[in-house]
Amino acid sequence: MPHYRAPVDDTLFLLNNVLGLQSRSNLSGFSDATPDVVEAVLREGGKLADEILAPINLAGDREGCVRHPDGTVTTPPGFKAAYDAYAGGGWMGLSVPEEYGGQGLPQVLNTAIQEFASGANLALGMYPGLTQGAIAALLVHGTAEQKTRYVPKMVDGTWTGTMNLTEPHCGTDLGLLRTKAVPNGDGSYAISGTKIFISAGEHDLAENIIHLVLARIEGAPAGTKGISLFLVPKVTVNEDGSLGGRNGVSCGSIEHKMGIHGNATCVMNYDGATGWLVGEANRGLNAMFVMMNEARLAVGVQGLGQSEVAYQNAVAYAKDRLQGRALTGAKAPERPADPIIVHPDIRRTLMQIRAFNEGARALVLWTALQADILHRSEDPKERQAADDHMGLMTPVVKGVLTDRGFANAVEAQQVFGGHGYVEEWGMSQFVRDARIAMIYEGANGIQAMDLIGRKLPKDGGRAMMGFLGEVQAFLKEAGEDEAMAPFTKPLQASIGDLQQATMWLMQNAMGNPDNAGAAATDYMHLLGLVALGYMWCRIAKAALAKKAEGDAARWDAKLVTGRFFMERSLPETALRLTRIKAGGQTTMALEAEVF
Amino acid sequence: MPHYRAPVDDTLFLLNNVLGLQSRSNLSGFSDATPDVVEAVLREGGKLADEILAPINLAGDREGCVRHPDGTVTTPPGFKAAYDAYAGGGWMGLSVPEEYGGQGLPQVLNTAIQEFASGANLALGMYPGLTQGAIAALLVHGTAEQKTRYVPKMVDGTWTGTMNLTEPHCGTDLGLLRTKAVPNGDGSYAISGTKIFISAGEHDLAENIIHLVLARIEGAPAGTKGISLFLVPKVTVNEDGSLGGRNGVSCGSIEHKMGIHGNATCVMNYDGATGWLVGEANRGLNAMFVMMNEARLAVGVQGLGQSEVAYQNAVAYAKDRLQGRALTGAKAPERPADPIIVHPDIRRTLMQIRAFNEGARALVLWTALQADILHRSEDPKERQAADDHMGLMTPVVKGVLTDRGFANAVEAQQVFGGHGYVEEWGMSQFVRDARIAMIYEGANGIQAMDLIGRKLPKDGGRAMMGFLGEVQAFLKEAGEDEAMAPFTKPLQASIGDLQQATMWLMQNAMGNPDNAGAAATDYMHLLGLVALGYMWCRIAKAALAKKAEGDAARWDAKLVTGRFFMERSLPETALRLTRIKAGGQTTMALEAEVF
Repeated sequence: MPHYRAPVDDTLFLLNNVLGLQSRSNLSGFSDATPDVVEAVLREGGKLADEILAPINLAGDREGCVRHPDGTVTTPPGFKAAYDAYAGGGWMGLSVPEEYGGQGLPQVLNTAIQEFASGANLALGMYPGLTQGAIAALLVHGTAEQKTRYVPKMVDGTWTGTMNLTEPHCGTDLGLLRTKAVPNGDGSYAISGTKIFISAGEHDLAENIIHLVLARIEGAPAGTKGISLFLVPKVTVNEDGSLGGRNGVSCGSIEHKMGIHGNATCVMNYDGATGWLVGEANRGLNAMFVMMNEARLAVGVQGLGQSEVAYQNAVAYAKDRLQGRALTGAKAPERPADPIIVHPDIRRTLMQIRAFNEGARALVLWTALQADILHRSEDPKERQAADDHMGLMTPVVKGVLTDRGFANAVEAQQVFGGHGYVEEWGMSQFVRDARIAMIYEGANGIQAMDLIGRKLPKDGGRAMMGFLGEVQAFLKEAGEDEAMAPFTKPLQASIGDLQQATMWLMQNAMGNPDNAGAAATDYMHLLGLVALGYMWCRIAKAALAKKAEGDAARWDAKLVTGRFFMERSLPETALRLTRIKAGGQTTMALEAEVF
Repeated sequence: MPHYRAPVDDTLFLLNNVLGLQSRSNLSGFSDATPDVVEAVLREGGKLADEILAPINLAGDREGCVRHPDGTVTTPPGFKAAYDAYAGGGWMGLSVPEEYGGQGLPQVLNTAIQEFASGANLALGMYPGLTQGAIAALLVHGTAEQKTRYVPKMVDGTWTGTMNLTEPHCGTDLGLLRTKAVPNGDGSYAISGTKIFISAGEHDLAENIIHLVLARIEGAPAGTKGISLFLVPKVTVNEDGSLGGRNGVSCGSIEHKMGIHGNATCVMNYDGATGWLVGEANRGLNAMFVMMNEARLAVGVQGLGQSEVAYQNAVAYAKDRLQGRALTGAKAPERPADPIIVHPDIRRTLMQIRAFNEGARALVLWTALQADILHRSEDPKERQAADDHMGLMTPVVKGVLTDRGFANAVEAQQVFGGHGYVEEWGMSQFVRDARIAMIYEGANGIQAMDLIGRKLPKDGGRAMMGFLGEVQAFLKEAGEDEAMAPFTKPLQASIGDLQQATMWLMQNAMGNPDNAGAAATDYMHLLGLVALGYMWCRIAKAALAKKAEGDAARWDAKLVTGRFFMERSLPETALRLTRIKAGGQTTMALEAEVF
C-alpha cells in the first residue's frame, strides 16, 4: 500500500529561509501569516493530506466514478467524507478574502497545500482545485451580486466549480467553439451545446455545481472575439441564496481514462440551460484566462505532487527490497542481500527525482509568492515585476513540472521492477495520474508556444530581462564565494545557454516563425532548467547559512542534493540550445502527405 | 479505432540495400532467402499483423485475461483464432531448423516479423515470442530426446513455452531463489515452489504449456552456482508424444497490471511437479541465458513496435484534427482550421519518433543478422565478431529501444491532447503496454550494468574496439563526400564522446566501481545513440544510391529524416558524457537513512 507524507519541513525552510516570507509583511494578509501560523497551517494541511486524502487514493483509482442511468455520478468510496474534511477545514478559502468567508492568508500557503493534496490524492484534490479556480474568476470578473451569491458557498464547499471550454471539435483552438447563448430578455441567457472533458462536471460531493461556461452569444463575431463566459449553476439559486430548480445541464457520459479515475470527466450537455454573463460580452476568453492561469500553476504543482509521492514510495521500496550486493562490498552482510538503495543506478534515479522535487518546490512557491505580490502589493513597480514573472513562469511551471513530474513517476516506478507494473503497489497509478497534467489546461506544446510567442516578446522582452537581471545580480553578489562555486559556476554556464538561445530566436524567428515553433518546447525546458538552477543557488545559500547554526547532517544532505542537480540535470541546457539552434528546417521540410 | 500497418517497405530497404542480405548466401539457410522469398515472407507477415493481430488489440486490453476458480485462464475474445492463424501460418518456426518442423530461414526475418507482431498486438505476440525463446533454449541445451519430443509441437503451435525465473523475493538476484528440485530416482525431478510474473503461464490458446523453470536441486550450492534448469510440462507427454496426465503445476492467480492485459501474467505454483533437467545440473543460469538473450533482443523489438504503432496513429490524427492555423499562414484556408500537422511542435514530435524508429529498425535488423552469422557462419573469425557484437548490442537494443519506445509512445499520445488520455483512442494502451518492456527480461538498469560491468570489459574490450573500428572505417571511407557530410560530421563528434566516456571509465571505474554504476545508464544511452547515428549513416549512403536510380521524393524524405536525427537527437551524446564524467560522488554521498 503506497503512502504519502507531506513535505512540511522542506516547505517551511523554503518559505522562511529561501523566500523570506516574513519580510513581506507589507502585503495585505501577510501580517497574519506569522511563523507560528504558517507552521500550524502547513502541519495541519499535511495531516489532512497524509491521513485523510492519501489512504483512499488507491481505492479511488480502482473503483473510479460511476455514472448512473439518471445522469447522477457517484464518486469512489470515502471521497465524500474526505471532501467534507477538506471543505470543513476551511482549506478551500485559505487565501480567499475574509469578506467572502475565506481566511485571507497568502496564496503561497494555498499553493503549498495544493502540492500536499495533489501528492496525496490527485483525483480528489481536483474537486476543490477547480472550485478555487472558479472562485478566482468570479472574484475578478463577477458582479458584486454574483460574488455574494455564489462565492461564499463555494468557499465553504457547499458548492463546487468547474470550467467548461472544450467541445468535441475544439480544445486548443477555442475560436471554433459552437456552444451558443441566447438572451432570455431578463438578463439571463439560454445556453445550448456540448462540452467534453469537463473535470468534476457531475458528482455527489456537493449540493450544487457552478459551471463556468464559454459560449457564443447569438450574432457575436466569429473566432475568439465572439466568446463570452457564463455562470451556469447545476441547480438554480434563488435571490435569497436558497436552491431553486434543476437547470438544463446534465452529464451525458463519463470518459474511460488512463488515470484520475476518482475524478469524473464528463460530457456535459447544455440544453437551454439558464446562465448569467460573467464579465463583458465577447470578452470571455479574457475572463477565463484568470481561471486558466491559476489552474496552470496548480497543474504544475500537480506534476510536482506526483513526482514527490512517487519518489517517497520508491525510497521506501529501495530501502526494503533485498537484491544483490553493493559494488563496493556487502552493506548488510547479515542479510541474504543488500537493500537495493546501495546500487548506484537506483541512487541515481532517486537523487535525480529528489533534486528535481526540491528545486521545483522552490520554483512553485517563488511563483505563487509573485501572485501574492501582484494582487496585494501597493507598489506598482513591484506589481509589474510580479506580473512579468507570472507571465513568464506560468507556462514553465505548467510545462516543465508536469513533463518532468511524469517522467519522474516513471523512473520511480522503475525502481520497483515488475512490482511497479502491478496495480496493487500503486506506482502505476502515479504514472497514469501524472500523465494528465501534461495535457489539460493547455497541452505542454501550447505552454511552450505561449511562452515563446506571447510571453517572451511581450513589452519588448521585459520579463525575460527582469529574470536574467535578477539571476545575474545574484551571481554577482555570490562572486567568488568558494562554498557557492559548485552552484554558481554551472548556473553561469547555463544562463549563457539561455542568453544564446534567446538571442538566436531574436535573430532567426522573426523572418521564419517555424524556427520559433520548432524551438518552443526546447526553449521552455531550457528556461525551466535555468530557473531550477537559480532556485538551487538560493537554496544552497540558505542551507549554508543554516548549516552554520547547526544540524549539519540535514544541510549537508541539502547541499549534496543541489550539487547533484547542478552536475547532472542542469547541463541539459546545452543540449536544448543545440536543438534550438538547429532551426526548423528538417522539422518542417517534409510535405504532410509524406508522413 | 487505432490502426497498424507493418513497415514492410522500410524493412525490405534495410535488408536489401543497407544490410546486404543477399551478399550473405554463404550462411546456411540464406540461399533460400532469395529477394522474392524475403519479400513474400514480409508481405505475408505484414498482412497477418495488420489484418489479424491489430484489429483485436484494443478489445484485448479492455477485456483482459480471466482466471477461473478451477485455475484455467481465458484469453480475450479473438485471441485464440488469431493465435491459430499465427501458428498455422508457420510463423513460430520461421527460422527454426527444418528437422524440427521449421523453415530454416534467417533469424533476421523472424526478427522483422516480431516487430510487426509487437506493433500490432504486443500482448498476443508474447505467446509465440516466449515459445520461440523456449525453443531456442531447448535447441541449444536440450537432449536429443527433449528436442524431438517437445520442439516440433512448439514449432507448430500445438504447445507454447514459458520461462520461470522470478520468485516473490527475487527477480534480478536469482542467487536467492528457493524453488527446489528433488530427484525422483527415474531421471526426473519433483519441482516445488512459487514463481511470479510468469507471462503466458496459463491460457486457452494451446493444448499444452512447456514451462522452463529455474530451481535448486536438493543439496546444490547456495547462490547462482546451484541453479538448474528444468522442463516442466503442464500436461506430461508420453514417450510416443501423446499427452499424459496433468502435472503438479497450476496458476494460482493472475496479476492486475498497468498494461498487456491480453497476456496472462501468472503466479505459478509448483507442487511436486515432474520436471526434467535441461543442460547440466547447476548450470541452469547458463542455459537460461540463451533464452534470455533471445528474449532481450525481442523485447527491444517490442519497444520499437510500440513506438511505430503509436507514431502511425499520431500521424493519422495530426492529419485529421483541425485546430489553429499554420504560423506561416493558413494551409487549408477552405476549412475552419488547419490540420495540426502544420504546427512545428507537432512536427517536431512526429519527426523525432520517425527518425528514431527508422534508425532503430536498422539497429535491430543489423543485430539479428549478427545472430545469424554467429549461429550459421563457418568462419570462426566472423563468428567471434558477431558474438562480440551481440554481447555489446543486446543490452543496448533492450535498454535503449524500450526506454525510447516508451517515451515515444508518450509523445505520440500527447499529439492527441485530451483524446490521448481517453482509452477508446488506443494511445493510452500503447503507453501502458510499452511500459513493461523497460522492466521485464532484466530491468533497463540491469541492462546498463550488464553492458558496463560485463560486456564492455570482456576480452580486454574487444567488442567495443570492434565496433569503434567498424564505425571509423565507415567514416574514413566516406571521407569528404559532401552529400554524406550532414551525417558523418555529427557522428564523428558523437563517437568522440563515446571514446572519451569509455576512456573515463577505464581511468575512473577500476578504483571506484560506484563511478561505473553511476555512469551505467548514461553510457548505455550514449552507445545506443552512436549506434543509431551509425545506422543513419549507412541508411543515408544507401538512400543516396537509391535516389540516383529514381523515386527522389521517397529518398529525400529518408535523408531529411536522417538529418533530423543527426541534428537534434544525436547531440544528446554530449550530455550523456557530461553526466558520466560527473562521477558517482554526489550520487552516492548520502547515507541511506537520509532518504
